[in-house]
Amino acid sequence: MPDTALRELTLEDIEALAVGAWVLGTGGGGSPYLGLLNMRRLYAEGHRVSLLDPDALEDDDMVAVVSNMGAPLVGQERLTDSENIARAVTLMEDYIGRRFRGIMSVEIGGNNGVQPLMAAAHLNRPVVDADAMGRAYPEAQMTSFAVGDLQPWPLTLVDPRGVEGIVARVPTWKWMERLSRKMCVETGSIAATCKAPRTGAEVKRWGILRTTTQAIKLGQAIRLAQREHRDPIEAILSAEDGQLLFRGKINDVARRTTEGFLRGTTRVEGLDDWRGSVMELAFQNEWAVGWIDGAPKVMTPDLICVLDTVSGEAIGTETLRYGQRVTVIALRAPPVFLTPRGLDFVGPRAFGYDLDFVSVFQ
Amino acid sequence: MPDTALRELTLEDIEALAVGAWVLGTGGGGSPYLGLLNMRRLYAEGHRVSLLDPDALEDDDMVAVVSNMGAPLVGQERLTDSENIARAVTLMEDYIGRRFRGIMSVEIGGNNGVQPLMAAAHLNRPVVDADAMGRAYPEAQMTSFAVGDLQPWPLTLVDPRGVEGIVARVPTWKWMERLSRKMCVETGSIAATCKAPRTGAEVKRWGILRTTTQAIKLGQAIRLAQREHRDPIEAILSAEDGQLLFRGKINDVARRTTEGFLRGTTRVEGLDDWRGSVMELAFQNEWAVGWIDGAPKVMTPDLICVLDTVSGEAIGTETLRYGQRVTVIALRAPPVFLTPRGLDFVGPRAFGYDLDFVSVFQ
Repeated sequence: MPDTALRELTLEDIEALAVGAWVLGTGGGGSPYLGLLNMRRLYAEGHRVSLLDPDALEDDDMVAVVSNMGAPLVGQERLTDSENIARAVTLMEDYIGRRFRGIMSVEIGGNNGVQPLMAAAHLNRPVVDADAMGRAYPEAQMTSFAVGDLQPWPLTLVDPRGVEGIVARVPTWKWMERLSRKMCVETGSIAATCKAPRTGAEVKRWGILRTTTQAIKLGQAIRLAQREHRDPIEAILSAEDGQLLFRGKINDVARRTTEGFLRGTTRVEGLDDWRGSVMELAFQNEWAVGWIDGAPKVMTPDLICVLDTVSGEAIGTETLRYGQRVTVIALRAPPVFLTPRGLDFVGPRAFGYDLDFVSVFQ
Repeated sequence: MPDTALRELTLEDIEALAVGAWVLGTGGGGSPYLGLLNMRRLYAEGHRVSLLDPDALEDDDMVAVVSNMGAPLVGQERLTDSENIARAVTLMEDYIGRRFRGIMSVEIGGNNGVQPLMAAAHLNRPVVDADAMGRAYPEAQMTSFAVGDLQPWPLTLVDPRGVEGIVARVPTWKWMERLSRKMCVETGSIAATCKAPRTGAEVKRWGILRTTTQAIKLGQAIRLAQREHRDPIEAILSAEDGQLLFRGKINDVARRTTEGFLRGTTRVEGLDDWRGSVMELAFQNEWAVGWIDGAPKVMTPDLICVLDTVSGEAIGTETLRYGQRVTVIALRAPPVFLTPRGLDFVGPRAFGYDLDFVSVFQ
């Protein structure tokens, strides 16, 4: 393995990861702030985490795929504890009788971009530089692994009170979502999970590769622009080849925590070039569809990012509030989700919107 | 092991078991008719099941504890399939890495008195002559094993569509109930389960012993009285030292399938000696409390049995209907549930009734 395949992450990298992953979360994945606090503590205690390039995986290596599952708003009250996600991984190792070579996130977006680092610190394993969404999505079957028709089971679920569950077998990815969601809801709508383990070959074929590095670079670009008093949103659009969609002020938020998700809508009153216009956004943990003056403008799987207009930092569906000055941008979806099969899993109809997918990048 | 410790059950024994277990079900456990049909088929195919006396268990033998979990009314539509309960047992064997010496029911009442026979037929293992309720109760923590403070986990849950779940660890018996109930509800409010495995020592110390034999003898007494045109209800009262409480006609049934249970109330208009009186009964799968003319007359853990006045056969909360002529009797609860700790688990307050337990046998 070449030296460059494994590199130790600095605390600066992790600070940047938290900022970049929050943008890629497209409103979901939970605020990375609490995960960042965990990582600062773990680094202060002497833990270090390395990032492993997916090309360095052997085909028969086993990789843990983790996430904190549930409604992001609950994560604002039940704080992230790094030991829970590590326990989900060891429970899976006990169950399948294999040792994981590395740990990756199911979604790079939001706090779930930081979750594998916490498990990795406790278990002294590298983080694999990949995820299965390239962003955040709310449901278990909304992954590149599901699009690739890989085996959906098993899953382990851990709650800090000592509740531990396993989904041992399911006939479909949707059944994995259904059963694990109900278990998650019963433990309070937030639980640490280790998803179906993947082989090195599966990660290399179906993973969204090097998204941890992508999130770190994105975060670095934002933080550099902030320090140099340049427009951080311009820095994001430039780093990710994104598209500016709308700027305005939040003047309504309708939000409810239901069935293990955070669902709702928000209304943005236009400012600057958009004065007189209104953008409405609907979300299920993540932003799903945005309408400008009643016409659909942007929709999943394009990444819809609502950013603080001044700082350029992301605003999550759980941290959204009246009066915020926001800028809405779109970033490009990983190609795997733009195929007809990909759109079946994550296109607007997968979220209940009777819309044909049209990308803002077409 | 003496020869008498293991005896092959005849189909006649199983026919009697179905009748006796339905009475001991106190309205719940599901109608044994479908399980009986399964056993007739399995016996016709050449399968045979033996009954093992619990005294023949070695202390470190492992015993599977099975039940069909959920709302009995659903069991009238999703028919019992003997292979599901066998799969719950083998999933547990795979999970714990131990082979079961025998299989017992968590509850002798209703179809759950027949469930271990179906698994035993497929897996060629004996049925252990014991249960953990001496009747049927609706919730996971309502067992002599819970009263004995034995370990509540693990549990396996199997659905005929190929959904398989494991509750790997819980902090309390109530959490076992909470998590497994939600999993059960999501699969359609009926699922085959293998509860926390028990050692031979635990079964001998905390099981309700020889209840399969008790149910067979009770069923034999009822069937003999039916054949000899004697009053089968008299036969039950005599066999079990029970108490006659009320006779009348069902004139109201309010029933709903909710949260994985069948809940409701029924109203019995008095006939014969009870003309002019009314008995009301409340149920959660099983009969919980009965009032005569507004005063509480009988309550859990006493066994409340609603019987067809003519045939003496039990009527379940899911087969209850307007116009049935019924006789309500009480049978004695196993002593383990009459202690203060036992009443915490299965007394009227455990079902939400603000009543001090008074037995009709006091």
